[in-house]
Amino acid sequence: MTGNDGPPCHPEIAETAFLLGQWQGSGVGDYPTIEGFEYLETATFGHVGKPFISYGQKTRRANTETPEPLHAEAGYFRPTGSGTLEFVVAQPSGILEIHTGTVAGTSIRLRSVSVVTSPTAKEVATVERSIEVIDDVMRYSLFMGAVGEPHQIHLRGELRRVSEGR
Amino acid sequence: MTGNDGPPCHPEIAETAFLLGQWQGSGVGDYPTIEGFEYLETATFGHVGKPFISYGQKTRRANTETPEPLHAEAGYFRPTGSGTLEFVVAQPSGILEIHTGTVAGTSIRLRSVSVVTSPTAKEVATVERSIEVIDDVMRYSLFMGAVGEPHQIHLRGELRRVSEGR
Repeated sequence: MTGNDGPPCHPEIAETAFLLGQWQGSGVGDYPTIEGFEYLETATFGHVGKPFISYGQKTRRANTETPEPLHAEAGYFRPTGSGTLEFVVAQPSGILEIHTGTVAGTSIRLRSVSVVTSPTAKEVATVERSIEVIDDVMRYSLFMGAVGEPHQIHLRGELRRVSEGR
Repeated sequence: MTGNDGPPCHPEIAETAFLLGQWQGSGVGDYPTIEGFEYLETATFGHVGKPFISYGQKTRRANTETPEPLHAEAGYFRPTGSGTLEFVVAQPSGILEIHTGTVAGTSIRLRSVSVVTSPTAKEVATVERSIEVIDDVMRYSLFMGAVGEPHQIHLRGELRRVSEGR
């Protein structure tokens, strides 16, 4: 899976190459401090032939006529040897996460080792992310401990691979 | 400057809207621990109508026949009130930077308040970034204190705006 005209995958991303492509779908979010919400999402997992996978996503509110952007984030998956990886991600809300985790088959489990925030951002203490791909369907969840609340489910989404492009 | 068919800029990004667009150009990099190098760069500064500017760039080595990707990074500019802003950015090298800074005219000065790295990344202690736009030309520099070396120039680049798209 190299994308059109793209370079071949670096051998170090072979284990996580099941992520590659452009994905679209939807999700639900909730947290004790906010109202529950539904969203539409597009996400891209790409590579340039180097030993990392780039990642970016955007969401907008579901069931609205006028597009209403919600979240965005951008980061990178860094395989670190058999069955292990790191993940770094930046968010426009001023939150940066560093994770370490594991890859088993087509499932990824990530747990934050550090969450840092810009001076005016909300406080986030802990994040866990899981991603599972079965054929062209990606299901993910995100657990978060933030703004004084205990670690708990925040997001759950399901995306379909719409292209294998980089 | 709203991009084709895009939403209008959020009022809070008006001061930094001079960044918006797609940019291409070149730069030079150097550091005591590496050989000097020249690179070609593409960068995109976009918005979705919310009070932040998304940022992504990729570089590849200059003067090679086969494309050789070098660096990439992705992040967000967060205006925080008159003449001030935050900047967060993630890099595939496992480095995350949080900056605060100032906007004066079409010049931005950023200084890291926190640089955090994933467990297997190289150590980076301090980063300063400056960006200046004059008409459709962007000049930037990046100073860095890393891997035990004192804070010093690392990158200097010059880009031209090739489109105003988001």
